[in-house]
Amino acid sequence: MKLPAALLDTLHTTFGADACSTHEAERLAYAYDNSRRHALPDAVVFAQEHAQIEKLVQACREHRIPVIARGRGTNTTGATVPVEGGVVVSFERMNRILRIDPDNRFAIVEPGVLNGDLQRALAPHGFFWPPDPTSSPWCSIGGNLACNSAGPRTVKYGSPRENTLGLRAVAGTGEGFRCGTYTSKGATGYDFTRLLIGSEGTLALITEATLKLTPKPSGLRTLRAMYRDVSSAAHAVARIMAQPVTPCALEFIDDVALKLAHDHGGDSVPLAGAMLMIEVDGEPETLPSAVDAVSRAARGDGLEELRVAQTAEETQALWSARKALSPAQRTISPNKINEDVVVPVSRLPELVNGIRQLSHKHDVLIVTFGHAGNGNLHVNLLPRDEAERERAHACLAEVFALVIALQGTLSGEHGIGLVKREFMPLALAPSTLGLMRNVKQAFDPDGILNPGKLLP
Amino acid sequence: MKLPAALLDTLHTTFGADACSTHEAERLAYAYDNSRRHALPDAVVFAQEHAQIEKLVQACREHRIPVIARGRGTNTTGATVPVEGGVVVSFERMNRILRIDPDNRFAIVEPGVLNGDLQRALAPHGFFWPPDPTSSPWCSIGGNLACNSAGPRTVKYGSPRENTLGLRAVAGTGEGFRCGTYTSKGATGYDFTRLLIGSEGTLALITEATLKLTPKPSGLRTLRAMYRDVSSAAHAVARIMAQPVTPCALEFIDDVALKLAHDHGGDSVPLAGAMLMIEVDGEPETLPSAVDAVSRAARGDGLEELRVAQTAEETQALWSARKALSPAQRTISPNKINEDVVVPVSRLPELVNGIRQLSHKHDVLIVTFGHAGNGNLHVNLLPRDEAERERAHACLAEVFALVIALQGTLSGEHGIGLVKREFMPLALAPSTLGLMRNVKQAFDPDGILNPGKLLP
Ligand SMILES: Cc1cc2nc3c(=O)[nH]c(=O)nc-3n(C[C@H](O)[C@H](O)[C@H](O)COP(=O)(O)OP(=O)(O)OC[C@H]3O[C@@H](n4cnc5c(N)ncnc54)[C@H](O)[C@@H]3O)c2cc1C
Ligand SMILES: Cc1cc2nc3c(=O)[nH]c(=O)nc-3n(C[C@H](O)[C@H](O)[C@H](O)COP(=O)(O)OP(=O)(O)OC[C@H]3O[C@@H](n4cnc5c(N)ncnc54)[C@H](O)[C@@H]3O)c2cc1C
Repeated sequence: MKLPAALLDTLHTTFGADACSTHEAERLAYAYDNSRRHALPDAVVFAQEHAQIEKLVQACREHRIPVIARGRGTNTTGATVPVEGGVVVSFERMNRILRIDPDNRFAIVEPGVLNGDLQRALAPHGFFWPPDPTSSPWCSIGGNLACNSAGPRTVKYGSPRENTLGLRAVAGTGEGFRCGTYTSKGATGYDFTRLLIGSEGTLALITEATLKLTPKPSGLRTLRAMYRDVSSAAHAVARIMAQPVTPCALEFIDDVALKLAHDHGGDSVPLAGAMLMIEVDGEPETLPSAVDAVSRAARGDGLEELRVAQTAEETQALWSARKALSPAQRTISPNKINEDVVVPVSRLPELVNGIRQLSHKHDVLIVTFGHAGNGNLHVNLLPRDEAERERAHACLAEVFALVIALQGTLSGEHGIGLVKREFMPLALAPSTLGLMRNVKQAFDPDGILNPGKLLP
Repeated sequence: MKLPAALLDTLHTTFGADACSTHEAERLAYAYDNSRRHALPDAVVFAQEHAQIEKLVQACREHRIPVIARGRGTNTTGATVPVEGGVVVSFERMNRILRIDPDNRFAIVEPGVLNGDLQRALAPHGFFWPPDPTSSPWCSIGGNLACNSAGPRTVKYGSPRENTLGLRAVAGTGEGFRCGTYTSKGATGYDFTRLLIGSEGTLALITEATLKLTPKPSGLRTLRAMYRDVSSAAHAVARIMAQPVTPCALEFIDDVALKLAHDHGGDSVPLAGAMLMIEVDGEPETLPSAVDAVSRAARGDGLEELRVAQTAEETQALWSARKALSPAQRTISPNKINEDVVVPVSRLPELVNGIRQLSHKHDVLIVTFGHAGNGNLHVNLLPRDEAERERAHACLAEVFALVIALQGTLSGEHGIGLVKREFMPLALAPSTLGLMRNVKQAFDPDGILNPGKLLP
């Protein structure tokens, strides 16, 4: 598709020559994301302020041209791939931290600020923003909000929905608006803040966010528990979550993943039936009793070893298996299918056992690991060739069916994007999907914002 | 208005004779709420299950008749007053706790369950549901969700939006739907759970809620700090919230309120320029250091006395002022105007001083007290006669203007309902209000759910 000349003119005047491109090379660079899907946009623009976004959406709406918001393209679901062409608007240059306000426990940021840069800026004030995807050094707050991205700390501190006070945004109508508050409480009208969080750029483009900050506890202790099998580890997770001391990380790694990490990372990576990495944080005086409480819950049938790190080096060493895991998977399968299903914590034993059976049935290598304290497991299918890839796809559908049968849902933190769209009817009834389409229509009557994503 | 005979027939068949009434006496009983506004409904029905609500809304939609959800009518904003007549649906008989699941930290309840009954049922499991309005023994979970009601604990544990996993509901279209998850994390489509929370029955009727539970800490310590004046107390609040130990209650009472409580409650109620009630909770070993941290922050210019309760009786005694306050206000003014504005914590000194000036300017008695840790103050105007009532109304508009100027908002926990509707344009821009109307339309195309509420 060629963009109408009038629209191109508006883009040039609005963004300036160095922030607006239709060159093939630039378009190629913004055609794909971490999902490895790709589709060429017709233009790429680099936003620097809210007013530009209003003009952009208004102009694109006039010509019925798609607008696709992009942070840093690290999402795994194809959520930024411009499947219907149109204009990709990158927020990478709109990356100022506008205000850090420790007295009121909030920070105001532009969407292009990197998660890691924000955390570094907050540290001297004694605060942090809880959402902590592993991609923190390379992913943007705008992307984090649009996907409701999370990480290990979520088990104690919540996801972006629990850690955002307000937003400024531009709807698909072309109208700018603010929602939410600068306060930690509010009951003034509909909650658009949470509605936009997790909406993957399909309702509005976020141009500013007021983030709720949490005081950073000064102490942290790391524990590693090895179990006879995945089932006994999964039961331990349920026990840990049923007692009062909530860990700030409760990560699970299955035997297949451990073996892979061991082969790749060497003997420092232990072998076992399954492993839990547990962290507790708090003021230093409170840590010994917290470690006790969590250790008590971690013990039980199938525990083979429980170690508490005493030094920073030991902590590093305990995490070695988790660290070795990502590169190890890549060596096996360049086409890994990376899911992040979630089930109620007590159903984890059934989930891991069920996945084990599906892996056998379809003869596809599957590793499971992840944020067990939330019941959120990364289920990575690792097909090595075309035949396995086909079997993997069939297997995936059964994984999702299993998850739904266990009262879980399709995604805990990665979102739906392009690749999980077709599975949405498994998770949501036609009535819910119908209302979601109505809401999409309410914000974006012409369907120009990130078409082809999230809703089937 | 007389309801169409066909609709009355449907109501009778759907609810049965003992759960459907058009008698004047019954209609009168459901004509008003705690706002003291009133308007007669044309019929009252008592729901017992989800399917009835679908039939009710479908039938009312067919005839374009308003449907007003009602919990226990304790809201202060006229949110349940059927200003355009129609059918009031009371959830008081749909009050079963369907499941308490400590392993997964959730409870599933029908909307008519009383907040206090739920807390009592959770206690033996070692859990609680954080939202704790003072009306807890008499208000329903459905009402709590619809208003995003909160209480003292919110400063540490959040409001219903942070403590609800999923909902079942019936939209104004007449369609039943589920939203949210049974898990503590989810990124599968738009967040309707939070959108419905705080929507005051204008988008959908809630028929079931999955509530996120929090482990109940076994220890609690109560502190009382007396200050020279409101300003020094307000500054102490900001200091307390800027350090890492978050109290589980941080309540403020101004001098006027203290004097009133003293006159009513006797010498056990202390007199001072202002008072803070502070509570910290946690496992018992962690309490001494928490008390230390909070005490350090409470000290500073203007502190006159700081007491830490050592026994249960002392704790009771420290709370005496707060307890005496509500009855004391009623003796002065049967027509108190009860607001619950909220500002960023650091702006509290400006808010309390500004309100003081407005009280002088308009010559109206105003007491301020409330959840200072969230910046959420109850501003109660106490007019004693008709002349004062008129002045109070003028004063109120200036209170709201002040709050907005301080980057605050109209309501922290009571919501908008009927009585604050006219002030919404102060808090929200036309673009935001316009999108809210679009969303209302998306859920309730014929505008039959609780008409005349929330949106101006
Ligand atoms: C190595 C690696 C590790 C990862 N680990 C995690 C993890 O632990 N947890 C986790 O949750 N995810 C993880 N991810 C996924 C990814 O990093 C997150 O989804 C991240 O939030 C995406 O941010 P981004 O800036 O790259 O957004 P993008 O990928 O550019 O965009 C993601 C979505 O957000 C939308 N969007 C972006 N900016 C805006 C805006 N301003 N307004 C509206 N919509 C916008 C886009 O349209 C798109 O739908 C990981 C990815 C990688 C590559
Ligand atoms: C003495 C007293 C103290 C109070 N203290 C506090 C306090 O500390 N904090 C606080 O926040 N509030 C407080 N309140 C206000 C009030 O108790 C809360 O707003 C409470 O949540 C209302 O619950 P309810 O069951 O009475 O709801 P109602 O008053 O019956 O209804 C409130 C709103 O909820 C809607 N609604 C009710 N059920 C449903 C449903 N199933 N589906 C959809 N919509 C529904 C109604 O339509 C209405 O809009 C207090 C009130 C009193 C009288």
